[in-house]
Amino acid sequence: MNVYLDNNATTKIDDIVFEEMTAFLKENYANPSSMYDPARVCANAIEKARQEVADFLGAEDKNTIIFTSCGSESANTAIKGILEKTDKKHIITTQVEHPCVLSVYESLEKKGYSATYLGVDENGELDIEKLLSKITPETALVSVMHANNETGAIYPVEEIAREVKKIDNNIKIFVDGVQAAGKLPINLKDTLIDFYSISGHKFHAPKGVGVLYVKKGNLFEPLIHGGHQEGSLRAGTQNTAYIVAMGAAARLAKANLDYELTHVKRLRDKLEKGILDNVKNARLNSKSQNRTPNTTNIGFEYIEGELILLYLNDLGIFASSGSACTSGSLDPSHVLRAQKTPFTSLHGSIRFSLSRYTTEAEIDYALEHIPSVIKKIVQISPFQKELKALGM
Amino acid sequence: MNVYLDNNATTKIDDIVFEEMTAFLKENYANPSSMYDPARVCANAIEKARQEVADFLGAEDKNTIIFTSCGSESANTAIKGILEKTDKKHIITTQVEHPCVLSVYESLEKKGYSATYLGVDENGELDIEKLLSKITPETALVSVMHANNETGAIYPVEEIAREVKKIDNNIKIFVDGVQAAGKLPINLKDTLIDFYSISGHKFHAPKGVGVLYVKKGNLFEPLIHGGHQEGSLRAGTQNTAYIVAMGAAARLAKANLDYELTHVKRLRDKLEKGILDNVKNARLNSKSQNRTPNTTNIGFEYIEGELILLYLNDLGIFASSGSACTSGSLDPSHVLRAQKTPFTSLHGSIRFSLSRYTTEAEIDYALEHIPSVIKKIVQISPFQKELKALGM
Repeated sequence: MNVYLDNNATTKIDDIVFEEMTAFLKENYANPSSMYDPARVCANAIEKARQEVADFLGAEDKNTIIFTSCGSESANTAIKGILEKTDKKHIITTQVEHPCVLSVYESLEKKGYSATYLGVDENGELDIEKLLSKITPETALVSVMHANNETGAIYPVEEIAREVKKIDNNIKIFVDGVQAAGKLPINLKDTLIDFYSISGHKFHAPKGVGVLYVKKGNLFEPLIHGGHQEGSLRAGTQNTAYIVAMGAAARLAKANLDYELTHVKRLRDKLEKGILDNVKNARLNSKSQNRTPNTTNIGFEYIEGELILLYLNDLGIFASSGSACTSGSLDPSHVLRAQKTPFTSLHGSIRFSLSRYTTEAEIDYALEHIPSVIKKIVQISPFQKELKALGM
Repeated sequence: MNVYLDNNATTKIDDIVFEEMTAFLKENYANPSSMYDPARVCANAIEKARQEVADFLGAEDKNTIIFTSCGSESANTAIKGILEKTDKKHIITTQVEHPCVLSVYESLEKKGYSATYLGVDENGELDIEKLLSKITPETALVSVMHANNETGAIYPVEEIAREVKKIDNNIKIFVDGVQAAGKLPINLKDTLIDFYSISGHKFHAPKGVGVLYVKKGNLFEPLIHGGHQEGSLRAGTQNTAYIVAMGAAARLAKANLDYELTHVKRLRDKLEKGILDNVKNARLNSKSQNRTPNTTNIGFEYIEGELILLYLNDLGIFASSGSACTSGSLDPSHVLRAQKTPFTSLHGSIRFSLSRYTTEAEIDYALEHIPSVIKKIVQISPFQKELKALGM
């Protein structure tokens, strides 16, 4: 049995999404910018997808939706594009942002920008008052993710936007919504958020398509200059097939949101409870009050995460120890360090993330095997005294 | 009958390309950066594709190949990435570059860079001596396309690189190879070109994948910061399916190059000769000595290109009057203006571009209909006296 529990890294493409996009990989291959009839079919499909994404995000108008090649491109476009339009050079963000966002700020710091990285408490939660206290007249941008990829913690981004704008209405708000899309209700209709990014492959579209929502009235310098595509805000021949896929995935995510918030959550809770009840050195890292319904992060004290993943892999159970974008690195998770996860479980922390494709049988299979895997690894831990004290 | 003669705008995906990529849109959906077995299948497929592209370009090493989301992204990455690593602020390029490249330089001029846009002669050819004479101690970059999208003119990019480097070895050379890939032999093994870009959808891969070749030893600032993908030079979860498609398309383009240079060229020549022989107001715009084998650009005097395209569209013949990226604009082609195409045929210029999928029957169909289409349009031209003088 194969049990894929790494849906925050990427997801399976929905069969309906695949089917709808395939026509644009086969017969409908015209360049959507061309003027003849077959091209118009493609251009129309793109506008239909744009409307589907706008509906999914509750955006006021489909022209707020810009298609990009991925979440990272959307984030880079928003951040750099905003900063190029202002002389202010201060950014407020959090220590728990996705590496693709943190890395942009680190690169900007080398160019004379200053960034304040807010910490979180031991539950992974942000102190909004503290965030507001960091605002200076130089602050150009406040950038907070909607949901954390590693723990599932949800941040009150609308409230943050509202409070920030009360202090300085010129500060732009960028929200990385990559881990929220498909897992949380999103409604940007009356938002004060200026820029919001999502990535298709996190909710059953293919890898290689993203969206940047830009609230009307916001100017930014394009990241990719060139042709007039996407309102001259993102050049490059449009990837009709993946844009159609993004539209279909957005429509399906909207339709399946209730299922995510109930059934997927129930399976996640079953997995989480099953592990915490049956594995004595297991500690919950996902402690935020508000959390995406599909994610749990559990630390196994005194053992190594990489070894757990290796054993699970051999059983056909696929999970992760951080974001896929930092895999291969031996540093423990920056997110768990930010919430001061004790070092005893930091290195043995595993993220399990479900999707609407996860079945009860898969969760049962995982629950059947995880305790014995941990038991095996515990036997070779150098921390036998500490583990015995836990009753193992 | 549908006759697609706009292959410089985009191409049909090869069936083999579609087949090879499909596995990565269906069962092999893992994030290639993840650590478990299904992810390794994806990571390995990406490295195989990287080698296929390296072989196609004759690159010395597969690690010179960076996958991007399109040709425009590759060009933006190269140009902005080079300039961020130097204090020099002068660029030499040509008036006939693709809009995606010209538009980058125009945006840079607004930021304090200066750009010299070299003209071409009436055959569309560049004067290398003139190019070299524009080099100053401030010159950071020389940027010349390998083949022109509108006329097919081939530029001697290796010779230009060699001569520029003789004068100043620190000047970087960027070549937009988007219209060369699949149509010309490319061999970067001993090249002096520093950066070379191609786009998959111009040679039977899907729209949404590009490559930037970066000769070893060249540093540049990434355009998309984030995760460690693509050697930390291009962040974003890798689009395994399209990367695999790019690899397959590169392999097939290499295998089909002889066919392009012989059969496709023969069909192009047949179309061109057929039109020029049978339409009295037809003038060849593709006059460069060296030309891609699939492209012809023909001006029809005293009539409007848009009207020709409309009539051809109704007959199922699809061609274009410039690059798809500028379509919708009423300005006549910047490429034809640069080569001083007479105003009498400038507005009535049509590009026909073939591919290995173009059949003899399609060319016969086009040749059967084009003269009568032109005849019909000529009847409503206000330039009856001039047309009569041509014998029409």
